[in-house]
Amino acid sequence: MSELAALWSELADIKDELAGRDWFMGTSGNLSIKVAQSGNFLITASGKDKRKKTNEDFLLVDANGNPAEETYLRPSAETLLHTEIYSRTAAGSVLHIHTVENNVISELFGDAGKVVFKGHEIIKATGRWEEDAELVVPIIYNHADIPTLTDEFSHHIHDDAGAVLIRNHGITVWGKTGLEAKKILEACEFLFQYTLVLNQQKAFTTKV
Amino acid sequence: MSELAALWSELADIKDELAGRDWFMGTSGNLSIKVAQSGNFLITASGKDKRKKTNEDFLLVDANGNPAEETYLRPSAETLLHTEIYSRTAAGSVLHIHTVENNVISELFGDAGKVVFKGHEIIKATGRWEEDAELVVPIIYNHADIPTLTDEFSHHIHDDAGAVLIRNHGITVWGKTGLEAKKILEACEFLFQYTLVLNQQKAFTTKV
Amino acid sequence: MSELAALWSELADIKDELAGRDWFMGTSGNLSIKVAQSGNFLITASGKDKRKKTNEDFLLVDANGNPAEETYLRPSAETLLHTEIYSRTAAGSVLHIHTVENNVISELFGDAGKVVFKGHEIIKATGRWEEDAELVVPIIYNHADIPTLTDEFSHHIHDDAGAVLIRNHGITVWGKTGLEAKKILEACEFLFQYTLVLNQQKAFTTKV
Amino acid sequence: MSELAALWSELADIKDELAGRDWFMGTSGNLSIKVAQSGNFLITASGKDKRKKTNEDFLLVDANGNPAEETYLRPSAETLLHTEIYSRTAAGSVLHIHTVENNVISELFGDAGKVVFKGHEIIKATGRWEEDAELVVPIIYNHADIPTLTDEFSHHIHDDAGAVLIRNHGITVWGKTGLEAKKILEACEFLFQYTLVLNQQKAFTTKV
Repeated sequence: MSELAALWSELADIKDELAGRDWFMGTSGNLSIKVAQSGNFLITASGKDKRKKTNEDFLLVDANGNPAEETYLRPSAETLLHTEIYSRTAAGSVLHIHTVENNVISELFGDAGKVVFKGHEIIKATGRWEEDAELVVPIIYNHADIPTLTDEFSHHIHDDAGAVLIRNHGITVWGKTGLEAKKILEACEFLFQYTLVLNQQKAFTTKV
Repeated sequence: MSELAALWSELADIKDELAGRDWFMGTSGNLSIKVAQSGNFLITASGKDKRKKTNEDFLLVDANGNPAEETYLRPSAETLLHTEIYSRTAAGSVLHIHTVENNVISELFGDAGKVVFKGHEIIKATGRWEEDAELVVPIIYNHADIPTLTDEFSHHIHDDAGAVLIRNHGITVWGKTGLEAKKILEACEFLFQYTLVLNQQKAFTTKV
Repeated sequence: MSELAALWSELADIKDELAGRDWFMGTSGNLSIKVAQSGNFLITASGKDKRKKTNEDFLLVDANGNPAEETYLRPSAETLLHTEIYSRTAAGSVLHIHTVENNVISELFGDAGKVVFKGHEIIKATGRWEEDAELVVPIIYNHADIPTLTDEFSHHIHDDAGAVLIRNHGITVWGKTGLEAKKILEACEFLFQYTLVLNQQKAFTTKV
Repeated sequence: MSELAALWSELADIKDELAGRDWFMGTSGNLSIKVAQSGNFLITASGKDKRKKTNEDFLLVDANGNPAEETYLRPSAETLLHTEIYSRTAAGSVLHIHTVENNVISELFGDAGKVVFKGHEIIKATGRWEEDAELVVPIIYNHADIPTLTDEFSHHIHDDAGAVLIRNHGITVWGKTGLEAKKILEACEFLFQYTLVLNQQKAFTTKV
């Protein structure tokens, strides 16, 4: 299998797994994986049903997000966020999804501009192995204009791995490989769910 | 594959996907897809287990909802809602499902007659791309008499795509294609879930 | 396919579907389907992992619940509830499962001895088609002694279809066929979930 | 099939089933199964995506947790907990997973050092069949140092079957076979979910 075919297969597997969790409701979300040295990357084509597996699910684009091959497919409307991350870091994969939980967390903590987690074993999945590691997920405003959104987003790209919430929109994570990005995504969603469930319980405990 | 076979396959895939989410509990719900020019449409047969995939899952009916072929199958008891939508719009597919979340939303907002969403990225999945797009889902009374129900329902059919909640019954959505209808359905269910989760969190935050 | 093989296959499909929803946590639960005239029925063997599909999942027992064939398999410890239902009605299938939701409902409404539903479209799935149909699900004490449990249970067997909750144990439903029993089960679980979600929402609405 | 191949297959099936429930978010968790007399056991290799099924998912280690064969694979970082359980009991399988629910329960009841369940039918799945059987799940502090964690954990290993929560980390269960361990795990998760849902309902009932 060529490198490109292997990357296609890796991204398709990630798409299938996230689709199985209903993390692309309303065909939302977009995913990409970088071809090692070329600067090109595979990204989800716009308007496709992410529950299906076809040979038009992804297309190859260059470092500027323009198709790197002749195609009638259009890259995701939010491709600019992917090019920004790849241009500033050594990330190998970018995943963007909408869940009810990440949307609610982004609304509850949106005015604070971030949500912070500490003292959770699962933080290790984000690559932080110190005993009191803290995970900070910034939350930015959902600018309708993608270049404006990308500009604000870019202030939070400091590392080869990371996660940013866009308010009432979704989460974007990146990592050195597809698996690393997926681990960060799952750790974040786990912590979002934990926070929501614990808050509900405290509502009960505080009262009685 | 003939047009009819392709449409059958498309509707069967939608049925499988929604069944996988348990959106047909108690074999509730009904689905249809229109054959382009004839005015005929495929609709779920009454009384079938929607978890199974058989060649008796759907039957072809005419624009009045009567079988367009010789068959012992009976069209869904709520076929009249489908014929009403197809007769008034250029919709290509109608989906009706019951979820716990859409039933609870229909009860909570039933007296207000509608539930309104704004400031959510996922609203784009319903075809509204303006920055402050509003999604209004009307809620009508669940008349036991289907013609009466259809009459009240018809007041909310203004476009080739739409969504209406029937109180403590379920949601009916329609769109130009099966995929468009499914996107609207998923966006609505996402927003219903979001509303329920956010309300629970506010119960906690407001108190403390 | 013989009648017995067809019934085995029908029960196996129901088992697979319910297992997929995690309705047999801890290998709990038991299922049976009646062989038309003999009075014999197929019932889940004791101690099996209900996530697996094997040719030892069920065994044939007679109307008294004793193996009707030479086998080392033991029928479910709660077989007596099944024989009681088959002896008093024309039911063709009995399903017993544990869910978090049915356990919580049984605890919340246990002192009242029943939980009552009205004004829900999904009640039709239980065979009640009148406009203001009421669904009453009795809740009985979870006697550790199975004959005592069966005796109390038997007071609630009035029809060929029905549902009874056993407190902090689970629900038992029956119907004329496997599909009818499954429809009743799904309708009950839907209404249990609805009740829990609506109550949480009212906690919020009442306060603000 | 050799004994080793049969055990590999049994552990792989358990892994698949738990992965399907998303009980390994962020590739967390670890599983093992003992080879009858040798004292060796198969354990999940470190850093693998538990959603995939490969011939590198597990490796054979000896009673001290060191590879029992030449391999580049590394055993799970928490192998020491497994060796401790196997050295003190006749357990045949150890399962460790992270769920949102077990993490929240560990936080809510962490200061009390345990969570106690009584009067639930599903407690039978843990091997306690007396009428008023009590299930006590100890909760220990999540020491970052694995030997320290193992030392505290070891105080709660009294039997061939058991369950211990590690605060904001996850649950570890063990049983005589893979199926027994899985039954205990499912019973615990069922009871954790039940507790969370019932508490939310009481928040409502108490107030009104």
